[in-house]
Amino acid sequence: MFPTETSERTDPLTIQLYGFWRSNAAFRVRVALALKTLPFEEIEVDILSGRQFDAGYAEVNAEHVVPTFVHDGHRIFQSLAIMEYLDDLQPEPRLLPAEAKERAYARSLALVSVADAHPLVVPRVRKHLGEAFGADAAAIGAWCSHWAREGLATYERLLTRRPASPFALGAAPTVADICIAGQIVTADLYEVDVSAFPRVMALGKRCFELPAFADAHPFQHPGYKNRTAEN
Amino acid sequence: MFPTETSERTDPLTIQLYGFWRSNAAFRVRVALALKTLPFEEIEVDILSGRQFDAGYAEVNAEHVVPTFVHDGHRIFQSLAIMEYLDDLQPEPRLLPAEAKERAYARSLALVSVADAHPLVVPRVRKHLGEAFGADAAAIGAWCSHWAREGLATYERLLTRRPASPFALGAAPTVADICIAGQIVTADLYEVDVSAFPRVMALGKRCFELPAFADAHPFQHPGYKNRTAEN
Repeated sequence: MFPTETSERTDPLTIQLYGFWRSNAAFRVRVALALKTLPFEEIEVDILSGRQFDAGYAEVNAEHVVPTFVHDGHRIFQSLAIMEYLDDLQPEPRLLPAEAKERAYARSLALVSVADAHPLVVPRVRKHLGEAFGADAAAIGAWCSHWAREGLATYERLLTRRPASPFALGAAPTVADICIAGQIVTADLYEVDVSAFPRVMALGKRCFELPAFADAHPFQHPGYKNRTAEN
Repeated sequence: MFPTETSERTDPLTIQLYGFWRSNAAFRVRVALALKTLPFEEIEVDILSGRQFDAGYAEVNAEHVVPTFVHDGHRIFQSLAIMEYLDDLQPEPRLLPAEAKERAYARSLALVSVADAHPLVVPRVRKHLGEAFGADAAAIGAWCSHWAREGLATYERLLTRRPASPFALGAAPTVADICIAGQIVTADLYEVDVSAFPRVMALGKRCFELPAFADAHPFQHPGYKNRTAEN
């Protein structure tokens, strides 16, 4: 059901993205592609129905996760690695600052969601909570809400430590803003009370005023409207 | 109990690392610093006793995690951001390949542990499993072993897809090998049966034959020998 390697496009101008409406990591890459105005074709992998474990997709992505980015027949996985690659592929507008300390800070902010908050709410973790602890849907939802809030709380503390600026590192969005916006998306999905996070939400508002962010939101994705009761 | 901002060294040749013997993220940075032969002073933050939440350290690291890297009075958090910064600070030996697609692959491999496997076994998650599900030590240990194995299984599948080479991307270790070795360290801590992962363990053997890796292993850290019953 998935394109085989030979059916993936090898035209250097063609980008394909294996993604899913609800995937936070796919959201990040959709925003990054839109900020760079790089057109792409999205191939759906229903991660809520376990399609990431199908043999066809396991061949595409050995980790059994989305997104997988395909450019010129070359596959890249892990959203932060993909966004960094996009900066190599087409440097402007930059998703990472040019100055080393600022670039490190952008990566640090990105990793708060990528490496700490978001990994705790992905499908395989939700599933294993049920298997290991008999957690029901309400308990799993509470777990996810907890970590969604923790991520936003960390971002709130971090944003208060720098002079106010439109985006996390200055006048233009970077990978930091993309990942903060992604953390807000997780909060949206779990209906988290965000009133304690005014700096984060003000930054999020500026992000989602941009079509690159707004159009990439899971609730704007065609897959959201076509979702089944299961997902 | 922690150095205040003014007591942190601002000598550009001085590097300080807030770390802890058991922290996998601190292990990664210790290896990276050793590969680059950059001397550093390690400041212990006992994350098993909750010292990362003390007001003094909360000022150093708003995320309440280790490691925090301090160079020339500038602080950087998140191990992958720190390792990338080290490549900017002192390019040789490179921790990330020069070619864009290879660099993306190195980051992807690193993120399998940094963003997927390791975040599931950190202290705050182990603690919350107890709070949310009443998990006891045995159940938490089983949870950690499960994700330690999952990380190794992903690495095993990935390593079989490329021609064999001494390290993940070729003749010299990169951030990929550092993070794979870190995943092996997690397996060591949870006494995981690693017999199903021969490629990973062969790569790990080559890594730990290097003093940069061997000396950074938690079990070689002075803090391990001085640990209390609690940790």
